[in-house]
Amino acid sequence: MTRRPKVYGDSRSGNCYKIKLLCAELHIDYDWQEVDILAGDTHTTQFLAMNPNGKIPLLALTDGRYLPESNAILAFLADGDRLAGADRFTRARVLQWMFFEQYSHEPNIATSRFIVKYLGNPPEQAQSLEAKRAGGYKALGVMEQQLAQQAHMAGEDFTIADIALFAYTHVADEGGFSLDDYPAIRTWIERIRARPYFVTMGSA
Amino acid sequence: MTRRPKVYGDSRSGNCYKIKLLCAELHIDYDWQEVDILAGDTHTTQFLAMNPNGKIPLLALTDGRYLPESNAILAFLADGDRLAGADRFTRARVLQWMFFEQYSHEPNIATSRFIVKYLGNPPEQAQSLEAKRAGGYKALGVMEQQLAQQAHMAGEDFTIADIALFAYTHVADEGGFSLDDYPAIRTWIERIRARPYFVTMGSA
Repeated sequence: MTRRPKVYGDSRSGNCYKIKLLCAELHIDYDWQEVDILAGDTHTTQFLAMNPNGKIPLLALTDGRYLPESNAILAFLADGDRLAGADRFTRARVLQWMFFEQYSHEPNIATSRFIVKYLGNPPEQAQSLEAKRAGGYKALGVMEQQLAQQAHMAGEDFTIADIALFAYTHVADEGGFSLDDYPAIRTWIERIRARPYFVTMGSA
Repeated sequence: MTRRPKVYGDSRSGNCYKIKLLCAELHIDYDWQEVDILAGDTHTTQFLAMNPNGKIPLLALTDGRYLPESNAILAFLADGDRLAGADRFTRARVLQWMFFEQYSHEPNIATSRFIVKYLGNPPEQAQSLEAKRAGGYKALGVMEQQLAQQAHMAGEDFTIADIALFAYTHVADEGGFSLDDYPAIRTWIERIRARPYFVTMGSA
Protein backbone atom coordinates (compact mmCIF):
# COMPACT_ATOMS: atom_id res chain seq x y z
CA MET A 1 0.00 0.00 0.00
CA THR A 2 1.37 3.33 -1.08
CA ARG A 3 1.98 6.18 1.32
CA ARG A 4 2.52 8.67 -1.46
CA PRO A 5 0.04 10.26 -3.86
CA LYS A 6 0.18 8.90 -7.39
CA VAL A 7 -0.02 10.98 -10.54
CA TYR A 8 -1.37 9.36 -13.69
CA GLY A 9 0.13 11.27 -16.57
CA ASP A 10 1.65 11.31 -20.04
CA SER A 11 5.20 12.73 -19.98
CA ARG A 12 4.62 14.52 -23.29
CA SER A 13 1.59 16.42 -21.95
CA GLY A 14 1.97 19.98 -20.68
CA ASN A 15 -1.06 19.56 -18.44
CA CYS A 16 0.73 16.66 -16.72
CA TYR A 17 4.05 18.54 -16.62
CA LYS A 18 2.35 21.23 -14.50
CA ILE A 19 2.06 18.75 -11.66
CA LYS A 20 5.75 17.80 -11.91
CA LEU A 21 6.75 21.47 -11.76
CA LEU A 22 4.65 22.14 -8.66
CA CYS A 23 5.71 18.98 -6.83
CA ALA A 24 9.35 19.94 -7.44
CA GLU A 25 8.71 23.46 -6.08
CA LEU A 26 6.94 22.19 -2.98
CA HIS A 27 9.14 19.10 -2.45
CA ILE A 28 6.13 16.81 -2.65
CA ASP A 29 7.00 13.12 -3.08
CA TYR A 30 4.77 11.20 -5.46
CA ASP A 31 4.67 8.20 -7.72
CA TRP A 32 4.25 8.64 -11.45
CA GLN A 33 2.15 6.24 -13.48
CA GLU A 34 2.83 6.72 -17.17
CA VAL A 35 -0.33 6.75 -19.29
CA ASP A 36 -0.28 6.77 -23.10
CA ILE A 37 -3.10 8.96 -24.43
CA LEU A 38 -2.51 7.96 -28.05
CA ALA A 39 -2.77 4.26 -27.14
CA GLY A 40 -6.19 4.89 -25.59
CA ASP A 41 -5.08 4.36 -21.99
CA THR A 42 -7.47 7.06 -20.73
CA HIS A 43 -10.52 5.37 -22.22
CA THR A 44 -10.27 1.93 -20.66
CA THR A 45 -13.01 0.84 -18.27
CA GLN A 46 -10.45 0.87 -15.48
CA PHE A 47 -9.36 4.46 -16.16
CA LEU A 48 -12.91 5.76 -16.64
CA ALA A 49 -13.80 4.34 -13.24
CA MET A 50 -11.16 6.70 -11.79
CA ASN A 51 -12.03 9.66 -14.03
CA PRO A 52 -15.29 9.48 -16.02
CA ASN A 53 -14.11 12.40 -18.17
CA GLY A 54 -11.23 10.22 -19.48
CA LYS A 55 -8.49 12.79 -19.11
CA ILE A 56 -5.09 13.14 -17.52
CA PRO A 57 -3.47 14.24 -15.30
CA LEU A 58 -5.28 12.45 -12.52
CA LEU A 59 -4.15 12.59 -8.90
CA ALA A 60 -4.77 9.51 -6.73
CA LEU A 61 -4.68 10.42 -3.05
CA THR A 62 -3.49 7.95 -0.45
CA ASP A 63 -7.04 7.71 0.96
CA GLY A 64 -8.36 6.34 -2.34
CA ARG A 65 -9.92 9.52 -3.69
CA TYR A 66 -9.17 10.82 -7.18
CA LEU A 67 -8.82 14.38 -8.41
CA PRO A 68 -8.72 15.26 -12.13
CA GLU A 69 -8.19 18.61 -13.94
CA SER A 70 -4.60 19.82 -13.95
CA ASN A 71 -5.35 23.25 -12.52
CA ALA A 72 -7.58 21.86 -9.75
CA ILE A 73 -4.71 19.53 -8.80
CA LEU A 74 -2.35 22.51 -8.67
CA ALA A 75 -4.80 24.40 -6.45
CA PHE A 76 -5.23 21.38 -4.18
CA LEU A 77 -1.51 20.75 -3.73
CA ALA A 78 -0.78 24.46 -3.19
CA ASP A 79 -3.83 25.12 -0.97
CA GLY A 80 -2.76 27.46 1.84
CA ASP A 81 0.67 28.06 0.30
CA ARG A 82 1.86 31.41 -1.09
CA LEU A 83 2.09 29.73 -4.50
CA ALA A 84 -1.73 29.80 -4.61
CA GLY A 85 -1.75 33.53 -3.78
CA ALA A 86 -0.84 35.27 -0.55
CA ASP A 87 -4.17 37.08 -0.08
CA ARG A 88 -7.79 36.85 -1.18
CA PHE A 89 -7.44 39.06 -4.24
CA THR A 90 -4.24 37.40 -5.41
CA ARG A 91 -5.85 33.96 -5.03
CA ALA A 92 -8.60 35.16 -7.38
CA ARG A 93 -6.02 36.66 -9.75
CA VAL A 94 -4.22 33.29 -9.83
CA LEU A 95 -7.47 31.52 -10.68
CA GLN A 96 -8.27 34.15 -13.31
CA TRP A 97 -5.11 33.24 -15.21
CA MET A 98 -5.69 29.52 -14.72
CA PHE A 99 -9.18 29.80 -16.22
CA PHE A 100 -7.71 31.94 -19.00
CA GLU A 101 -5.21 29.15 -19.60
CA GLN A 102 -7.86 26.47 -19.95
CA TYR A 103 -10.28 28.55 -22.02
CA SER A 104 -8.22 30.92 -24.17
CA HIS A 105 -4.71 29.43 -24.28
CA GLU A 106 -4.70 25.63 -24.05
CA PRO A 107 -7.44 24.97 -26.66
CA ASN A 108 -5.37 26.90 -29.19
CA ILE A 109 -1.72 26.48 -28.28
CA ALA A 110 -1.64 23.01 -26.70
CA THR A 111 -3.98 21.45 -29.22
CA SER A 112 -1.93 22.92 -32.12
CA ARG A 113 1.14 21.22 -30.65
CA PHE A 114 -0.80 17.97 -30.36
CA ILE A 115 -1.85 18.13 -34.01
CA VAL A 116 1.64 19.03 -35.27
CA LYS A 117 3.87 16.98 -32.99
CA TYR A 118 1.79 13.93 -32.08
CA LEU A 119 -0.68 13.53 -34.92
CA GLY A 120 2.02 14.33 -37.51
CA ASN A 121 0.25 17.42 -38.89
CA PRO A 122 -2.23 15.54 -41.11
CA PRO A 123 -3.85 17.49 -44.01
CA GLU A 124 -7.38 16.90 -42.65
CA GLN A 125 -6.43 18.92 -39.57
CA ALA A 126 -5.09 21.90 -41.56
CA GLN A 127 -8.29 23.91 -41.23
CA SER A 128 -8.58 23.21 -37.52
CA LEU A 129 -4.95 24.24 -37.05
CA GLU A 130 -5.46 27.46 -38.98
CA ALA A 131 -8.49 28.31 -36.83
CA LYS A 132 -6.36 28.03 -33.70
CA ARG A 133 -3.70 30.42 -35.01
CA ALA A 134 -5.51 33.70 -34.28
CA GLY A 135 -6.79 32.55 -30.88
CA GLY A 136 -3.35 31.37 -29.85
CA TYR A 137 -1.62 34.60 -30.80
CA LYS A 138 -4.37 36.59 -29.10
CA ALA A 139 -3.73 34.66 -25.87
CA LEU A 140 0.02 35.26 -26.19
CA GLY A 141 -0.69 38.97 -26.72
CA VAL A 142 -2.70 39.14 -23.51
CA MET A 143 0.13 37.41 -21.63
CA GLU A 144 2.75 39.70 -23.16
CA GLN A 145 0.83 42.81 -22.09
CA GLN A 146 0.66 41.48 -18.52
CA LEU A 147 4.29 40.36 -18.34
CA ALA A 148 5.54 43.68 -19.71
CA GLN A 149 4.20 45.23 -16.49
CA GLN A 150 5.11 42.68 -13.84
CA ALA A 151 7.45 39.75 -13.26
CA HIS A 152 4.81 37.04 -13.08
CA MET A 153 1.28 36.42 -14.29
CA ALA A 154 -0.57 37.21 -11.05
CA GLY A 155 1.77 39.93 -9.81
CA GLU A 156 5.41 40.17 -8.77
CA ASP A 157 5.44 36.73 -7.15
CA PHE A 158 5.69 33.33 -8.82
CA THR A 159 2.44 31.34 -8.40
CA ILE A 160 0.67 28.30 -9.78
CA ALA A 161 -0.74 30.59 -12.51
CA ASP A 162 2.82 30.77 -13.88
CA ILE A 163 3.12 27.00 -13.73
CA ALA A 164 -0.20 26.58 -15.54
CA LEU A 165 0.79 28.97 -18.34
CA PHE A 166 4.45 27.98 -18.59
CA ALA A 167 3.63 24.36 -19.43
CA TYR A 168 2.47 24.96 -23.01
CA THR A 169 3.89 28.45 -23.61
CA HIS A 170 7.51 27.30 -23.41
CA VAL A 171 6.86 24.71 -26.13
CA ALA A 172 4.51 26.91 -28.21
CA ASP A 173 6.96 26.63 -31.12
CA GLU A 174 6.17 22.91 -31.33
CA GLY A 175 2.67 23.91 -32.41
CA GLY A 176 3.94 26.50 -34.85
CA PHE A 177 3.78 29.61 -32.66
CA SER A 178 6.77 31.95 -32.73
CA LEU A 179 7.64 33.94 -29.60
CA ASP A 180 9.89 36.34 -31.54
CA ASP A 181 7.49 39.24 -31.03
CA TYR A 182 6.90 38.45 -27.35
CA PRO A 183 10.02 39.59 -25.47
CA ALA A 184 8.33 39.78 -22.06
CA ILE A 185 7.13 36.19 -22.42
CA ARG A 186 10.64 35.06 -23.38
CA THR A 187 12.13 36.81 -20.31
CA TRP A 188 9.46 35.21 -18.10
CA ILE A 189 10.28 31.76 -19.52
CA GLU A 190 13.95 32.26 -18.63
CA ARG A 191 12.96 33.51 -15.17
CA ILE A 192 11.04 30.30 -14.54
CA ARG A 193 13.78 28.10 -15.99
CA ALA A 194 16.21 29.72 -13.53
CA ARG A 195 14.18 28.70 -10.47
CA PRO A 196 16.19 26.43 -8.15
CA TYR A 197 13.86 23.42 -8.29
CA PHE A 198 12.92 23.71 -11.95
CA VAL A 199 12.50 20.42 -13.80
CA THR A 200 12.40 20.06 -17.57
CA MET A 201 9.44 18.63 -19.47
CA GLY A 202 9.66 14.90 -20.08
CA SER A 203 12.08 14.40 -17.18
CA ALA A 204 11.59 11.47 -14.83
CA MET B 1 -18.18 57.39 -6.06
CA THR B 2 -19.64 53.93 -5.75
CA ARG B 3 -19.40 51.93 -2.57
CA ARG B 4 -20.55 48.75 -4.25
CA PRO B 5 -18.75 46.47 -6.65
CA LYS B 6 -19.89 46.73 -10.25
CA VAL B 7 -20.46 43.83 -12.61
CA TYR B 8 -20.07 44.42 -16.34
CA GLY B 9 -22.21 41.81 -18.03
CA ASP B 10 -24.60 40.84 -20.79
CA SER B 11 -27.95 39.66 -19.37
CA ARG B 12 -28.20 36.96 -22.07
CA SER B 13 -24.86 35.41 -21.09
CA GLY B 14 -24.74 32.39 -18.81
CA ASN B 15 -21.24 33.32 -17.68
CA CYS B 16 -22.62 36.66 -16.46
CA TYR B 17 -25.71 35.03 -14.93
CA LYS B 18 -23.40 32.98 -12.67
CA ILE B 19 -22.45 36.18 -10.84
CA LYS B 20 -26.09 37.17 -10.35
CA LEU B 21 -26.89 33.73 -8.88
CA LEU B 22 -24.00 33.90 -6.41
CA CYS B 23 -24.65 37.49 -5.34
CA ALA B 24 -28.28 36.55 -4.64
CA GLU B 25 -27.16 33.53 -2.56
CA LEU B 26 -24.66 35.58 -0.55
CA HIS B 27 -26.78 38.78 -0.38
CA ILE B 28 -24.02 40.80 -2.02
CA ASP B 29 -25.11 44.23 -3.24
CA TYR B 30 -23.69 45.28 -6.57
CA ASP B 31 -24.33 47.50 -9.55
CA TRP B 32 -24.92 45.97 -12.95
CA GLN B 33 -23.54 47.59 -16.08
CA GLU B 34 -25.17 46.10 -19.15
CA VAL B 35 -22.69 45.32 -21.94
CA ASP B 36 -23.77 44.22 -25.42
CA ILE B 37 -21.31 41.63 -26.78
CA LEU B 38 -22.89 41.58 -30.23
CA ALA B 39 -22.55 45.36 -30.52
CA GLY B 40 -18.81 45.06 -29.85
CA ASP B 41 -18.94 46.66 -26.40
CA THR B 42 -16.19 44.33 -25.11
CA HIS B 43 -13.72 45.39 -27.78
CA THR B 44 -13.69 49.15 -27.28
CA THR B 45 -10.45 50.78 -26.13
CA GLN B 46 -12.15 51.64 -22.86
CA PHE B 47 -13.25 48.07 -22.17
CA LEU B 48 -9.91 46.53 -23.19
CA ALA B 49 -8.20 48.84 -20.70
CA MET B 50 -10.25 47.11 -17.98
CA ASN B 51 -9.90 43.59 -19.43
CA PRO B 52 -7.30 43.07 -22.17
CA ASN B 53 -8.90 39.70 -22.99
CA GLY B 54 -12.10 41.52 -24.05
CA LYS B 55 -14.54 39.28 -22.23
CA ILE B 56 -17.37 39.54 -19.75
CA PRO B 57 -18.29 39.21 -16.96
CA LEU B 58 -15.88 41.65 -15.42
CA LEU B 59 -15.99 42.60 -11.74
CA ALA B 60 -14.93 46.14 -10.81
CA LEU B 61 -14.00 46.35 -7.14
CA THR B 62 -14.56 49.52 -5.14
CA ASP B 63 -10.76 50.01 -4.87
CA GLY B 64 -10.43 50.30 -8.66
CA ARG B 65 -9.16 46.81 -9.39
CA TYR B 66 -10.77 44.60 -12.03
CA LEU B 67 -11.29 40.85 -12.04
CA PRO B 68 -12.35 38.93 -15.18
CA GLU B 69 -13.21 35.24 -15.74
CA SER B 70 -16.63 34.23 -14.42
CA ASN B 71 -15.37 31.32 -12.33
CA ALA B 72 -12.55 33.36 -10.78
CA ILE B 73 -15.14 35.98 -9.81
CA LEU B 74 -17.26 33.25 -8.19
CA ALA B 75 -14.22 31.98 -6.27
CA PHE B 76 -13.33 35.52 -5.17
CA LEU B 77 -16.81 36.40 -3.93
CA ALA B 78 -17.21 33.03 -2.18
CA ASP B 79 -13.65 32.90 -0.77
CA GLY B 80 -13.82 31.53 2.78
CA ASP B 81 -17.52 30.65 2.46
CA ARG B 82 -18.91 27.09 2.45
CA LEU B 83 -20.11 27.72 -1.09
CA ALA B 84 -16.46 27.46 -2.21
CA GLY B 85 -16.08 24.13 -0.37
CA ALA B 86 -16.00 23.46 3.35
CA ASP B 87 -12.61 21.70 3.41
CA ARG B 88 -9.43 21.46 1.35
CA PHE B 89 -10.50 18.48 -0.73
CA THR B 90 -13.97 19.88 -1.41
CA ARG B 91 -12.45 23.20 -2.50
CA ALA B 92 -10.40 21.26 -5.04
CA ARG B 93 -13.45 19.26 -6.11
CA VAL B 94 -15.34 22.52 -6.65
CA LEU B 95 -12.51 23.85 -8.82
CA GLN B 96 -12.33 20.54 -10.69
CA TRP B 97 -15.93 21.00 -11.87
CA MET B 98 -15.39 24.67 -12.63
CA PHE B 99 -12.42 23.84 -14.87
CA PHE B 100 -14.49 21.04 -16.41
CA GLU B 101 -17.17 23.63 -17.09
CA GLN B 102 -14.82 25.99 -18.89
CA TYR B 103 -12.96 23.31 -20.86
CA SER B 104 -15.43 20.51 -21.61
CA HIS B 105 -18.90 22.05 -21.18
CA GLU B 106 -19.00 25.76 -22.06
CA PRO B 107 -17.09 25.52 -25.39
CA ASN B 108 -19.69 23.01 -26.61
CA ILE B 109 -22.97 23.84 -24.90
CA ALA B 110 -22.76 27.61 -24.42
CA THR B 111 -21.25 28.28 -27.82
CA SER B 112 -23.93 26.13 -29.52
CA ARG B 113 -26.56 28.30 -27.82
CA PHE B 114 -24.75 31.42 -29.01
CA ILE B 115 -24.72 30.16 -32.61
CA VAL B 116 -28.38 29.08 -32.56
CA LYS B 117 -29.98 31.79 -30.46
CA TYR B 118 -27.86 34.88 -31.06
CA LEU B 119 -26.27 34.35 -34.46
CA GLY B 120 -29.52 32.95 -35.87
CA ASN B 121 -28.08 29.54 -36.73
CA PRO B 122 -26.35 30.59 -39.98
CA PRO B 123 -25.49 27.82 -42.51
CA GLU B 124 -21.75 28.63 -42.38
CA GLN B 125 -21.76 27.63 -38.71
CA ALA B 126 -23.46 24.25 -39.33
CA GLN B 127 -20.19 22.30 -39.31
CA SER B 128 -18.96 24.02 -36.16
CA LEU B 129 -22.30 23.33 -34.46
CA GLU B 130 -22.19 19.67 -35.46
CA ALA B 131 -18.65 19.36 -34.04
CA LYS B 132 -19.89 20.61 -30.67
CA ARG B 133 -22.71 18.06 -30.48
CA ALA B 134 -20.63 15.05 -29.36
CA GLY B 135 -18.54 17.07 -26.92
CA GLY B 136 -21.62 18.65 -25.37
CA TYR B 137 -23.40 15.34 -24.86
CA LYS B 138 -20.22 13.81 -23.46
CA ALA B 139 -20.05 16.62 -20.88
CA LEU B 140 -23.72 16.11 -19.99
CA GLY B 141 -23.04 12.38 -19.61
CA VAL B 142 -20.24 13.05 -17.14
CA MET B 143 -22.51 15.36 -15.14
CA GLU B 144 -25.37 12.83 -15.19
CA GLN B 145 -23.10 10.11 -13.83
CA GLN B 146 -22.04 12.38 -10.98
CA LEU B 147 -25.52 13.67 -10.15
CA ALA B 148 -26.97 10.15 -10.12
CA GLN B 149 -24.74 9.53 -7.08
CA GLN B 150 -25.01 12.78 -5.14
CA ALA B 151 -27.22 15.84 -4.82
CA HIS B 152 -24.74 18.38 -6.14
CA MET B 153 -21.69 18.48 -8.38
CA ALA B 154 -19.01 18.58 -5.67
CA GLY B 155 -20.83 16.41 -3.13
CA GLU B 156 -24.04 16.65 -1.12
CA ASP B 157 -23.76 20.41 -0.61
CA PHE B 158 -24.59 23.19 -3.05
CA THR B 159 -21.44 25.07 -4.11
CA ILE B 160 -20.23 27.51 -6.74
CA ALA B 161 -19.51 24.48 -8.96
CA ASP B 162 -23.30 24.05 -9.22
CA ILE B 163 -23.70 27.72 -10.08
CA ALA B 164 -21.01 27.47 -12.76
CA LEU B 165 -22.61 24.41 -14.38
CA PHE B 166 -26.25 25.43 -13.91
CA ALA B 167 -25.82 28.63 -15.94
CA TYR B 168 -25.64 26.98 -19.36
CA THR B 169 -27.04 23.53 -18.55
CA HIS B 170 -30.51 24.82 -17.70
CA VAL B 171 -30.71 26.49 -21.13
CA ALA B 172 -28.92 23.70 -23.03
CA ASP B 173 -32.09 23.23 -25.14
CA GLU B 174 -31.53 26.70 -26.62
CA GLY B 175 -28.41 25.30 -28.27
CA GLY B 176 -30.18 22.16 -29.42
CA PHE B 177 -29.31 19.81 -26.55
CA SER B 178 -32.10 17.66 -25.13
CA LEU B 179 -32.02 16.70 -21.45
CA ASP B 180 -34.61 13.93 -21.93
CA ASP B 181 -32.04 11.21 -21.29
CA TYR B 182 -30.51 12.99 -18.29
CA PRO B 183 -32.98 12.58 -15.40
CA ALA B 184 -30.43 13.31 -12.66
CA ILE B 185 -29.51 16.60 -14.34
CA ARG B 186 -33.19 17.54 -14.60
CA THR B 187 -33.74 16.81 -10.89
CA TRP B 188 -30.64 18.86 -10.03
CA ILE B 189 -31.95 21.79 -12.11
CA GLU B 190 -35.23 21.71 -10.16
CA ARG B 191 -33.29 21.47 -6.89
CA ILE B 192 -31.40 24.64 -7.75
CA ARG B 193 -34.52 26.45 -8.97
CA ALA B 194 -36.12 25.71 -5.59
CA ARG B 195 -33.39 27.47 -3.63
CA PRO B 196 -34.79 30.40 -1.61
CA TYR B 197 -32.71 33.14 -3.21
CA PHE B 198 -32.78 31.77 -6.75
CA VAL B 199 -33.00 34.37 -9.51
CA THR B 200 -33.93 33.64 -13.11
CA MET B 201 -31.66 34.33 -16.07
CA GLY B 202 -32.16 37.72 -17.64
CA SER B 203 -33.74 39.15 -14.48
CA ALA B 204 -32.75 42.60 -13.30
